[in-house]
Amino acid sequence: MINSVAKEAKRKTGNRFIDCDIHNEVPSNEVLKQYLPLRWRKYMDMVGLRSYHGFVQSVPYPKGNPGGTRADAWPPNGQIPGSDLKFMQEQLLDPLNLEYGILNCLYRVGEQLNDEYGAALARAVNDWQIAEWLDKEPRLRASIVIPYENADMAVEEINRVASHSGFVQVLIMPRTREPMGRRKYWKIYEAAENHGLPIAVHFGGLGGNAITSSGFPSYYIEDHTSMAQAFQCQVISMVCEGIFERFPNLQVVMLEGGFAWMPSLMWRLDKHWKRLNEEVPFLKRKPSEYIRRHMHFTTQPIEEPPVPEYLLQVIEHLGSDDMLMFATDYPHWDYDSPDLTFDAKFPEKLKQKFFYKNAQSLYRFPDKE
Amino acid sequence: MINSVAKEAKRKTGNRFIDCDIHNEVPSNEVLKQYLPLRWRKYMDMVGLRSYHGFVQSVPYPKGNPGGTRADAWPPNGQIPGSDLKFMQEQLLDPLNLEYGILNCLYRVGEQLNDEYGAALARAVNDWQIAEWLDKEPRLRASIVIPYENADMAVEEINRVASHSGFVQVLIMPRTREPMGRRKYWKIYEAAENHGLPIAVHFGGLGGNAITSSGFPSYYIEDHTSMAQAFQCQVISMVCEGIFERFPNLQVVMLEGGFAWMPSLMWRLDKHWKRLNEEVPFLKRKPSEYIRRHMHFTTQPIEEPPVPEYLLQVIEHLGSDDMLMFATDYPHWDYDSPDLTFDAKFPEKLKQKFFYKNAQSLYRFPDKE
Repeated sequence: MINSVAKEAKRKTGNRFIDCDIHNEVPSNEVLKQYLPLRWRKYMDMVGLRSYHGFVQSVPYPKGNPGGTRADAWPPNGQIPGSDLKFMQEQLLDPLNLEYGILNCLYRVGEQLNDEYGAALARAVNDWQIAEWLDKEPRLRASIVIPYENADMAVEEINRVASHSGFVQVLIMPRTREPMGRRKYWKIYEAAENHGLPIAVHFGGLGGNAITSSGFPSYYIEDHTSMAQAFQCQVISMVCEGIFERFPNLQVVMLEGGFAWMPSLMWRLDKHWKRLNEEVPFLKRKPSEYIRRHMHFTTQPIEEPPVPEYLLQVIEHLGSDDMLMFATDYPHWDYDSPDLTFDAKFPEKLKQKFFYKNAQSLYRFPDKE
Repeated sequence: MINSVAKEAKRKTGNRFIDCDIHNEVPSNEVLKQYLPLRWRKYMDMVGLRSYHGFVQSVPYPKGNPGGTRADAWPPNGQIPGSDLKFMQEQLLDPLNLEYGILNCLYRVGEQLNDEYGAALARAVNDWQIAEWLDKEPRLRASIVIPYENADMAVEEINRVASHSGFVQVLIMPRTREPMGRRKYWKIYEAAENHGLPIAVHFGGLGGNAITSSGFPSYYIEDHTSMAQAFQCQVISMVCEGIFERFPNLQVVMLEGGFAWMPSLMWRLDKHWKRLNEEVPFLKRKPSEYIRRHMHFTTQPIEEPPVPEYLLQVIEHLGSDDMLMFATDYPHWDYDSPDLTFDAKFPEKLKQKFFYKNAQSLYRFPDKE
């Protein structure tokens, strides 16, 4: 089945892909402990992971998809999906013939309540990524995981590993403790900008606030659907706080948040800015201009309008075709394969941008052709 | 100026308007006290209004627009904008030649922490609306204000005044204490459905949660822009909790929340429902079908894309032209006048629906022609 998907993908799209969202999973705490000093190995035995509301990882994915993954993504070695490089090569990198794939490890580093523990976990996860993934597979790149609620510690970790050429961005989850434009995060953006690394914001996280402005919803489908609003708030916050005036070379990638809500958000924000710009005098441009110059969005999960051509109209409404980048979200259950991602008849040039060129340009990947 | 606006509006749109969002303001606590029993008059002197975070009304509207109103909307009698019927007739009803106008009084009834006080205020405000507005001006209709965080008391108030023909819907603010689909609000929907009254959800409120899933933003422009996300969460909650299966005749009007975000929300929700419908087995239809059958959106503030025709595409994406209804938001600063509201070249039939027919049909207003 994988082969037919790959063949179909090639037929429809040509043969050059960069996958901007692949998940490598820490197979077990025992594996991670090999990268942790004694103090934190003991601590891990004592508390495991501990975040808001005493939350311990139990991703509420739908029944029948343990761990939130595709049913076929369990490696033969019995480890959890996304944890085995060889199987990922066979199931994703080879059949799709990916030129580059970017790993976003979602291990719950950033939301640990104990800052020092979070920082230790970040070091361990990044060292594990270097040893087990980046140094073994030249097609892969990765995001630096950081204890993002403590900017000083986060900066320390960025500075520690940024020189490894496998790391191409810095990862934050959109449900932060405060809106991402606020001052507590600015040092992180400064460090990322200094190293020429984009900030990647990936679906998820838990910062202590309810996902809606009316508290916690009853159902997972609501939580899942509402994450787009969490992304919207972060776009608004980063733009309105003037992040892109203060860090003019910073780029931000929104991963797994959709993008069809962007045009209406840009219109709304531009309209309000016209009347309220006195409140944010450090903004020199219209909000939508910052968004087009500094923000990028991945195509998984892609919105699926009943009339596929509506999606082309939405992309026109964005006002730029440089912002969208392809992603599969492998090995998660809502994986998008490239043959299925685009029902609409996309112009060839647009497809090349989505599947390859926009990401190649943002991450300055050498063009292999 | 008002006259030229009205003339231009007639030229552009024909001559039939229903304004779905006009704000009548309680001129002062002293006026409201005439409608309150002694106990609550004393209480008002003691605590004023008291809601979440000790919040006391201080609407953070931009400088130079005291009370969040148009600079020209202060009546000659020196009272606050929106508080004087005669001036509203001269400034809004007459020049726009409104056939009907719907009053949404935003007095902070629903978010009072003392439930009994909230219920007393609701009774006072509704009695004041009857005496000072509805019984004096046949073109006006009004929303019933309710202490919506206590459903039993809210139902009591709905039942008390629903027989007055001037009341055409029940008002709730979207920043409720819990998502609006949750069981604590169901009795309100049951009562509204029994009386044939839509639920109106109007910009605002304060239920104790931050407006973003990452806490409180720094600037008013963020808060103002993020209210659209509060509406999105409420649409998701009401649909996913099966409100429209449980109350199949209930209609919901979203006021001052925009609508250009609706298509992408419907696509996202339909897509997730396809994979997650086992979690919400009481939903018999696609989420977007409930939205099209049961939800309505007002046109103020209308999104203003840089290419006006994009708005026509967004309306096509909605999949129905029965959902949109005209509103001015008089006397607030972000008032939309009908000549300015629609830059795009709307087909005549569509304009008739937006400006008149959709509202006339929803509220079953007698057609005066």
